[in-house]
Amino acid sequence: MMELPQDTVGAFMTRNIHGGGAGPLGGLDWAAKDLFDLAGEVTGYGNPDWARTHAPAAATAPVVMALLAAGARLVGKTKTVELAFGMTGENVWYGTPLNPRAPDRFPGGSSCGSAAAVAAGLVDFALGSDTGGSVRIPASYCGLFGIRPSHGVISLAGACPLGPSLDTPGWFTRGADLLERIGAVLLPGGAPAEGPLLRVEEAWANADPEVAAVLAAALARLEVDFGPAVGLAAAPEGLKVLQDTYRALQGQEAWAALGGWVAATAPKFGPGVAERFAVARDTPDAAVAAGQAARRRLQARLRPLLAGGAVLVFPTSPSPAPLLAADPDEQQRVRVATLRVTAIASLAGLPEVTLPAGTVGGVPVGLSLVGGVGSDRALLRLAKRAADLLGLG
Amino acid sequence: MMELPQDTVGAFMTRNIHGGGAGPLGGLDWAAKDLFDLAGEVTGYGNPDWARTHAPAAATAPVVMALLAAGARLVGKTKTVELAFGMTGENVWYGTPLNPRAPDRFPGGSSCGSAAAVAAGLVDFALGSDTGGSVRIPASYCGLFGIRPSHGVISLAGACPLGPSLDTPGWFTRGADLLERIGAVLLPGGAPAEGPLLRVEEAWANADPEVAAVLAAALARLEVDFGPAVGLAAAPEGLKVLQDTYRALQGQEAWAALGGWVAATAPKFGPGVAERFAVARDTPDAAVAAGQAARRRLQARLRPLLAGGAVLVFPTSPSPAPLLAADPDEQQRVRVATLRVTAIASLAGLPEVTLPAGTVGGVPVGLSLVGGVGSDRALLRLAKRAADLLGLG
Repeated sequence: MMELPQDTVGAFMTRNIHGGGAGPLGGLDWAAKDLFDLAGEVTGYGNPDWARTHAPAAATAPVVMALLAAGARLVGKTKTVELAFGMTGENVWYGTPLNPRAPDRFPGGSSCGSAAAVAAGLVDFALGSDTGGSVRIPASYCGLFGIRPSHGVISLAGACPLGPSLDTPGWFTRGADLLERIGAVLLPGGAPAEGPLLRVEEAWANADPEVAAVLAAALARLEVDFGPAVGLAAAPEGLKVLQDTYRALQGQEAWAALGGWVAATAPKFGPGVAERFAVARDTPDAAVAAGQAARRRLQARLRPLLAGGAVLVFPTSPSPAPLLAADPDEQQRVRVATLRVTAIASLAGLPEVTLPAGTVGGVPVGLSLVGGVGSDRALLRLAKRAADLLGLG
Repeated sequence: MMELPQDTVGAFMTRNIHGGGAGPLGGLDWAAKDLFDLAGEVTGYGNPDWARTHAPAAATAPVVMALLAAGARLVGKTKTVELAFGMTGENVWYGTPLNPRAPDRFPGGSSCGSAAAVAAGLVDFALGSDTGGSVRIPASYCGLFGIRPSHGVISLAGACPLGPSLDTPGWFTRGADLLERIGAVLLPGGAPAEGPLLRVEEAWANADPEVAAVLAAALARLEVDFGPAVGLAAAPEGLKVLQDTYRALQGQEAWAALGGWVAATAPKFGPGVAERFAVARDTPDAAVAAGQAARRRLQARLRPLLAGGAVLVFPTSPSPAPLLAADPDEQQRVRVATLRVTAIASLAGLPEVTLPAGTVGGVPVGLSLVGGVGSDRALLRLAKRAADLLGLG
């Protein structure tokens, strides 16, 4: 793109051009979630008080540098849910980005602007971050490909933290090819992800029936080539324990990372965010200890199971994007049901790729593939193959 | 043992002492199934016409040499089902060995004499072989520990073949310690087997309810230490497909290996054996081709799943040993139900250890642990830990 198109979906915070040249990503435009530092610019983190109380960044985040070095042209910074602490994509301060695939519905968050910008075709790809689903969920809601890599394989230096033991960067594309090409720039090679497919029974049961039905049809198509999926009861402790575990660990870390600023600044927050920080602040020590033990058990269970190339498969989000008009109770129901499933990869530190594998009443829903630790590159190849089989381009 | 005890259970074919000296197995007495060659002796293979038409072996089988070199004293050769082609342990020519734990029931086969000799305390351990369960089933029926190693890791040179792509040696002990010590002599190190435990749902459903109940209690005890078992629908094609696959591949190989001798010699066979060879001879080419494809699919599914250390767990035999008085229909029912489960490790080439984890009405039943290819040594360590947890010594 030679000129920047109009921001038809309200995705951007700022639009400053950086880089653009030769390289493996040469000729591509991209945007970065406004929690990654760009030297000389204030990182806004989705909240006016945050922007007001923070100086311009001294250095550019290494992951941003890597993408610039690969030749991609950065055209701006995209909106995030304030302090990345939310899943619908709502931002009352700067306006919630439009979901281009379902304008009466939320775009998903917290990487809402990044998803909206890609889905609207404003950029070729966008960088986001994912703690409990903040790439995977907007990708599912906006009909995009998205990846949350293995925890720790891409530096988060120069990125605002939410839960450091859970945070990862991630990116969105409209096609599986580019998703993989970006992985070739950012990710090391390593572990296999070649199947078999393991159908996580609890996650399928947790999905809305119409979501499960649409994605089961996609899975059936994949099974023709990958062989029959193996049913796996992956969470004998129950998905609620995973959700409680996620909430305790993320809460404790969010308060440790951001509580000092919240307490000192008493920032104005949009609906629900202050309440989430209050819950985070009050996370009981016992819940954190229990959560750490539960996470170790989950890792001890899933990591060996996937080390040889097996891949979990399940609906990325149990529901399509909630309506903008949904009441808070319905939003909370969706949030809880979603975290029960996104917690799997978040807690286990595993890479997850979501494919826009279907629609329910015209609204997109994603199918997730989760590989073993370090299988990111192989998982992207597998996702490309799956996308080809599903005719997703 | 300085003197050879009386053969109270009719386990032995011949009783000739070989070896015995210093080494990791020094001081231990053992016996070998009469399908392993001992130089200068006729290998009888359980059938008088086989013995009559075969010259004394020119060389001793390498696996026998290895055990002798480790200092163990070989005290004789044990009965086998004729041509190893049967699962109850019956031998009408030499007498069916007694099951010391259930004298009114079959000992299990085809390594019946080896199991009976160990269960009766006549030897410390015994060597058998396993194609479709010939170590695992008599171990389960006689209340013993037994292992079928990864296919191909221990030489079967000098052992009579039944289905070369399925045949393995194997051994029986009364304790997990010795099972592992023998593994240290015969097996290479290699892949991990540390859990998680994967409960093969189809195999549990295939077991008699009272067998499943007893072994589920044992599994629950293991879960306290190993973490909750993960439910796995490992055979989406159905266990019957695995049984059909086993039957086609084993039939084709058995006829290829032994059909020439059977056709030329027209040997007298005990009940059922001639019929099994007739079925083997008539195995349709299409069934073999389909079986090879099904085996590849099973291997492609299970091998990656277990490569990282995960371990399948299920009842070794779906029933306790059949009564000697059971009619042929009941024997056939048990045989079919058993092969549906033993086919898993046989077809996938995986190591399986069975532990004498319970009794049903006083009759032993085994619990199996199946690890990844090459995980044999680690699987034996895991079995030792499981035996300790279950108080099996």
